[in-house]
Amino acid sequence: MALGAAARPGRTAMKNIAFVGLGAMGRPMARNLVKAGLTVRGFDLNPAGLADLEAAGGTPCGSVQDAFRGADAIVLMVVNAQQAEAVLFDENAIAAAPPEAIVCLMATCPPKRVQTIAERVARTGRRFVDSPVSGGVVGAMVGSLTVMAAAPAETFAAVRPVLEAMGSRTLQVGDRPGQGATVKTVNQLLCGVHIAAAAEALALAERVGVDTRTMLDILTGTAAGSWMLRDRGPRMLEPEPEVTSAVDIFVKDLDIVLEAGRETKAALPLAALAHQLFTSTSGRGDGAADDSQVIRAYRALNGTA
Amino acid sequence: MALGAAARPGRTAMKNIAFVGLGAMGRPMARNLVKAGLTVRGFDLNPAGLADLEAAGGTPCGSVQDAFRGADAIVLMVVNAQQAEAVLFDENAIAAAPPEAIVCLMATCPPKRVQTIAERVARTGRRFVDSPVSGGVVGAMVGSLTVMAAAPAETFAAVRPVLEAMGSRTLQVGDRPGQGATVKTVNQLLCGVHIAAAAEALALAERVGVDTRTMLDILTGTAAGSWMLRDRGPRMLEPEPEVTSAVDIFVKDLDIVLEAGRETKAALPLAALAHQLFTSTSGRGDGAADDSQVIRAYRALNGTA
Repeated sequence: MALGAAARPGRTAMKNIAFVGLGAMGRPMARNLVKAGLTVRGFDLNPAGLADLEAAGGTPCGSVQDAFRGADAIVLMVVNAQQAEAVLFDENAIAAAPPEAIVCLMATCPPKRVQTIAERVARTGRRFVDSPVSGGVVGAMVGSLTVMAAAPAETFAAVRPVLEAMGSRTLQVGDRPGQGATVKTVNQLLCGVHIAAAAEALALAERVGVDTRTMLDILTGTAAGSWMLRDRGPRMLEPEPEVTSAVDIFVKDLDIVLEAGRETKAALPLAALAHQLFTSTSGRGDGAADDSQVIRAYRALNGTA
Repeated sequence: MALGAAARPGRTAMKNIAFVGLGAMGRPMARNLVKAGLTVRGFDLNPAGLADLEAAGGTPCGSVQDAFRGADAIVLMVVNAQQAEAVLFDENAIAAAPPEAIVCLMATCPPKRVQTIAERVARTGRRFVDSPVSGGVVGAMVGSLTVMAAAPAETFAAVRPVLEAMGSRTLQVGDRPGQGATVKTVNQLLCGVHIAAAAEALALAERVGVDTRTMLDILTGTAAGSWMLRDRGPRMLEPEPEVTSAVDIFVKDLDIVLEAGRETKAALPLAALAHQLFTSTSGRGDGAADDSQVIRAYRALNGTA
């Protein structure tokens, strides 16, 4: 018997998407939804985000409630859990969305906060997908994001086409809210530590005096290789590289990693140390620089800045 | 005028190799030299190493001097710089080698120590190649090692066929002794930190409670990926994995990394922390375990051991 399923219009094809959070990641993601033939009603406090959506063929809205009206799915690409809570629950905004709407929280948030948000959404009778992404602004633009989704099978199946319009890998990593956020948290732990490790390695090479470009070419092909070494390493050797993701993003993301550690009482000494290095880089005024510039923390420590 | 070159028999094809240090790495490397048609005279204090060489078609020798006699190249695959110095200079052993012999130091040693050894070799009139390897026991067996060689062009060209018989990538990373060791040191910094980071990430995942195997599959395909995550990650999830490289190897190698930092006064906080984690794992009695088992340090810290 599939009565429950049959009774839910949400099981049918998704058409109307509410998109909140039209920043560096959100704008290209919303554009990709429009390109996939979906109707996108968006909201952001920044008028530039609304203008971008309109230019792409979406509908800018004057309020969250306005964006939520008639939505089959609500996509949240806001900065953090606090913003996600404000968007959904301030003035009970979620009540403006149809009862069968599915909330997709795609921002990077601590697992426990995601669970709390999911519980509050469930109390309104609506469904929830914990669905953070990996791949950065470039991945958002070319639609190659990895989506790490946790939701019951039926809910995941319903929103899957929406998620697939934004990414090239849409994975169901679990069936409970918080599991997607956990995978993303662990992902960011590794990304942040790997960037800092690449910086430490290259700073040592600079100090000892070998040709860092040659060394980088060699090391990306050995057991020392990482995705981050190959991607961020060359930018570490540039004085003012283009910003693809800022130092302050990792100050925030590693703080989420550490919050996950605090919540579960798990020791994360490498993540804590990497967080200090990103924080000190931000503290010296380089928070908006490309995250590869965490190498400046080493140059500062070594007096080679 | 190539008088100097013409006067050196070492410029002609290498035939006779002295191999000292027939341990886990040295045995398969010596076997590959024999397979390549070279004559190998070997020495090790451990009779098992000598027996292995003999079975492979090489000649076991009763002393270092005996192995050195008639050698075009001397390959040292000993444990550390101290052993390399003892092999070459105790009882002036190097005098037993022909004056045109080229010493290839392939063990992982601190850059400054390599420079000192190279200077002592040069004072005897013999040539020296700083040529550490990456790739581990498996790479040594299948001949896929990366050789990071630093030597003047002529010397490198002369021993290149010997080095290529043991590895699949033979790179000239510089022309001065110490540069090969530096690249290898930076290589080990990244390898050690990446293994510890993978352990920290998987220990957090265990603590939060997600399926670690699924997560590992996902993360190896994202920006969080590293060679070590893919190689050591699965073994971290096994209770007693096969030992491909021991915890104590990284206790030693990260100590060499830290020595390079001390020598040049470069801060290496991540390497220092990773070293503590490997050291504590060894201290709890797991020094001979597979290096993936540094994850036990996290389980001990978190009380989930």
